[in-house]
Amino acid sequence: MKYTSYKPMNCSLAQTLAVIGDRWTLLILRDIFFGQKRFAQLQRNLGIAKNILAARLKQLMEEGIVEKRESESGAHAEYVLTPAGLELQPVLLAMTHWGDKHRPNPKGERVTFIERETGKPIRRMGVVSEDGRPLRAREVRAIPGPGAD
Amino acid sequence: MKYTSYKPMNCSLAQTLAVIGDRWTLLILRDIFFGQKRFAQLQRNLGIAKNILAARLKQLMEEGIVEKRESESGAHAEYVLTPAGLELQPVLLAMTHWGDKHRPNPKGERVTFIERETGKPIRRMGVVSEDGRPLRAREVRAIPGPGAD
Repeated sequence: MKYTSYKPMNCSLAQTLAVIGDRWTLLILRDIFFGQKRFAQLQRNLGIAKNILAARLKQLMEEGIVEKRESESGAHAEYVLTPAGLELQPVLLAMTHWGDKHRPNPKGERVTFIERETGKPIRRMGVVSEDGRPLRAREVRAIPGPGAD
Repeated sequence: MKYTSYKPMNCSLAQTLAVIGDRWTLLILRDIFFGQKRFAQLQRNLGIAKNILAARLKQLMEEGIVEKRESESGAHAEYVLTPAGLELQPVLLAMTHWGDKHRPNPKGERVTFIERETGKPIRRMGVVSEDGRPLRAREVRAIPGPGAD
């Protein structure tokens, strides 16, 4: 199936997949979230071919997820997340938490996510009711919204 | 990059990508979450080739995400989510919410997720501090855990 063929689907999940569904793309975003900003850093860390990295970054820029700017010193270009890109954090964290639990490293969490200010671990990503109670999958129901076909 | 080559990465996100990183796989899971259980239903709804659907379902069974059982009437096979599969709901919902916001249907949400018991919409998926405050991406920091390399 071609990349672009998700776009006509009237489904928010498919729309998001059209943006981040390539697996390299999610790993590139992970590394940018981890503070890697330079092409050479990303390329080295991921062990990805330059042309593929360049193509994925270009696409992320076209989608408004990443922007390219000059570093403060002006010496090189940096890739940083846009506000829409930063809002992908729940997706990446939900995937990370699932992997922590279901494909664990026997020594424990590979990465711990903490609140910067308090140093305390964040809550595990989960589905929550309007008034803040954790919900299990079976307690959630999907109904057609105003944008349904 | 080959599918299996994520597995050696000591990264929970990469581990999850190795399970659900194929885009068809996420759409198959979406439809099973939406209550479609039969091969023919999934195949018709997704417009996917039979051999691809069969291969993806086989892989989901091998990964312990989906299991195959007989329907109550015994007339056909059904695919249902395992407990580990049900725990992927936060991933799918976080992706859906991002798509709702950043790739919206102009008429509104395509699907609304409600709490079965109260009928009220669930909260938007988001990152939350230990004591339940919503956190922005910049307020979260990643530190190496006990399972880091």
